[in-house]
Amino acid sequence: MEKKNNPDTIQNSIIYANNAATTWPKPPSVLAAVYKAAAGPYLEQGRTTVQDVPDYLFETRRRLANFFNTRDPDAYVFTAHATDSLNLLIHGFARQEKGPFHVITTLFEHNSVIRPLYELQKTGRISLTVIPPNAEGIIDPDDVSGALRDDTKLGIFSHAGNVIGTVQDISEITRIMDEADIFSIIDGAQSAGQIPIDLSRILCDAFVFTGHKYLFGVPGTGGFFLRSPDQIYPVRQGGTGIDSSSPVQPESMPERFEAGTPNFPGIAGLGAGIAYVQDIGIEAIQTKTMGMISDLIQKLQEINGVSILHEHPQTPLVSFQIPGLDPDDIGYILAKAYRIITRSGLHCAPWVHSRLTEGKGAVRISLSYMNTFEECAQIADAINALCQSE
Amino acid sequence: MEKKNNPDTIQNSIIYANNAATTWPKPPSVLAAVYKAAAGPYLEQGRTTVQDVPDYLFETRRRLANFFNTRDPDAYVFTAHATDSLNLLIHGFARQEKGPFHVITTLFEHNSVIRPLYELQKTGRISLTVIPPNAEGIIDPDDVSGALRDDTKLGIFSHAGNVIGTVQDISEITRIMDEADIFSIIDGAQSAGQIPIDLSRILCDAFVFTGHKYLFGVPGTGGFFLRSPDQIYPVRQGGTGIDSSSPVQPESMPERFEAGTPNFPGIAGLGAGIAYVQDIGIEAIQTKTMGMISDLIQKLQEINGVSILHEHPQTPLVSFQIPGLDPDDIGYILAKAYRIITRSGLHCAPWVHSRLTEGKGAVRISLSYMNTFEECAQIADAINALCQSE
Repeated sequence: MEKKNNPDTIQNSIIYANNAATTWPKPPSVLAAVYKAAAGPYLEQGRTTVQDVPDYLFETRRRLANFFNTRDPDAYVFTAHATDSLNLLIHGFARQEKGPFHVITTLFEHNSVIRPLYELQKTGRISLTVIPPNAEGIIDPDDVSGALRDDTKLGIFSHAGNVIGTVQDISEITRIMDEADIFSIIDGAQSAGQIPIDLSRILCDAFVFTGHKYLFGVPGTGGFFLRSPDQIYPVRQGGTGIDSSSPVQPESMPERFEAGTPNFPGIAGLGAGIAYVQDIGIEAIQTKTMGMISDLIQKLQEINGVSILHEHPQTPLVSFQIPGLDPDDIGYILAKAYRIITRSGLHCAPWVHSRLTEGKGAVRISLSYMNTFEECAQIADAINALCQSE
Repeated sequence: MEKKNNPDTIQNSIIYANNAATTWPKPPSVLAAVYKAAAGPYLEQGRTTVQDVPDYLFETRRRLANFFNTRDPDAYVFTAHATDSLNLLIHGFARQEKGPFHVITTLFEHNSVIRPLYELQKTGRISLTVIPPNAEGIIDPDDVSGALRDDTKLGIFSHAGNVIGTVQDISEITRIMDEADIFSIIDGAQSAGQIPIDLSRILCDAFVFTGHKYLFGVPGTGGFFLRSPDQIYPVRQGGTGIDSSSPVQPESMPERFEAGTPNFPGIAGLGAGIAYVQDIGIEAIQTKTMGMISDLIQKLQEINGVSILHEHPQTPLVSFQIPGLDPDDIGYILAKAYRIITRSGLHCAPWVHSRLTEGKGAVRISLSYMNTFEECAQIADAINALCQSE
């Protein structure tokens, strides 16, 4: 097996293809924004007493509203990550419901959806319908309609999957939900920054995003857009800097869901990350990333022994197996021998893996705008060499 | 009223005295650590496939264990802030209890304790005893003993108060709790980094800290030490990178409470912040900060018209009123005319303010090791001038 030389620094030597977990590298503007906000000074953000420091929170909220094409910046709540967002929304919705209710979701969901739902299911709070995709990896909106019951109150839908990269028709799915008066949550962790999203035209009640993936922020940031705050109970309570004499969480947005000191540096970085995406443009990003993934998939298809889970992704990722090799071993060899960083295993998405890999897992290559066609060629070469050496 | 010239930069011109909210400035080593971790690359932390990048999470956990003198680094859980920690602990404890139970707490608590407890109280899950301090601002451990009931299951105690700066005898209080087999949570948001804390000698079940105050990390970080994980139900669920095929949260620590992608940059910064505190030494920090606050209080006592809430703090903060002036106006004038940053209002501590200021609030000056005696003299001069001009 060919082994590459070790250059001086990791940064120069690795090929990073685990962007669906966390994008890397980050734009210099993001790092600069994080540093500047961390350096401070820390003045009263949002309730300013000295005007010289940017209001990082509101600036980023305004940018989010612009990016997702909605009007009110205060409809965007900051959280620690998409998992935090989904917990606040799912448990906050359930807290409002008196009796048991029915939830519709899809086979593509991440453990950040599966585990909160299971928590509600095992305590008898909900019953659950999990909709599988068709052979093309698409959730048929008719299947969503068909799953509706009189007691259906909530629908949660992954926008873009983190294992095979298909994108769901959330416009139609949320239209069905809206027509039936069912609260709908879209998990946009894998889609925001990758495909155009216009929340003025999508009838979801809540849209979840994370900062550290394709919006190019740093880990520790995420949030959600929420159309009607009173439909979600604030299950986390604490200081908000307003209405301090009241023992209950304020009703106003975004304080209703933002107890505790916000992650100013991370949120400033998220604003810079969205600006980076906007400056390049989603279409230009897609053209490059989808071009790279098409090239890579084509090369992988030519390698004997590589089994691709899905050959027509709509986001730049591809998962594969090499029969006879454990995915974790493949990931390990790619990292150690070729310094190619992938993610092996179940990708926190056990349901889709149980269907597509019988729970055995796969190796995922996920690209961002920061990757190059040359890196994709090197990845294909490494996988080819790995297959030949077996 | 004398108005200062505006120098070129805020950093050079402001006197920052709101450290009980967030310390500023941050040590350069903290900013460097945040930047380095944010710059990446992002490899598999904790489950490393390429060894060249520090495991920021474990490094900081190890430092926390060293700092608080406990053995197992994995007993430290990272959260978004102390509010997040307290919610996970309070709601996670309540989730384990079948029937209603009794909780003991103190008048000094922050809204991050008050609001979660009120949430449980209003739904009939708990009854609550709030212990007031004596005239010296101290919670008498005998009062804690006296509050015990057969159904008391939980005690939550602020270690150092954020309004008058007294420090409670948590060794004795947690001994009482331990003897009665009651789960005890210490809120160390204001104490960690300010006074020596040896968790090997304090019988608390959980100790809450925040990153962005006296441990000199950046906002977006916090956590808790937990002695017996199975006493707290994981009320936030999601991906952990381990046991991904299971729909329930892993039982192992710290994954049980750490769903979602951690704030690597913030946690790396927290590690550097604790190292900064350890390098200087808590005793040296206390000597300087308590010297400064004593000087300041002495000067304030000489000003006609200043009413100090408590003249013998054990952490470097002092809150005051000027009768006839609204605390918010005082804070505003200090900021605008003197560029002195304080925090006015209720400090998210409505209970203690309801007792000490009849809910009218006060102006708080809170120092850190980064302040100077000269700044304290300038603060006293400004308050003196403000009183004379009235």
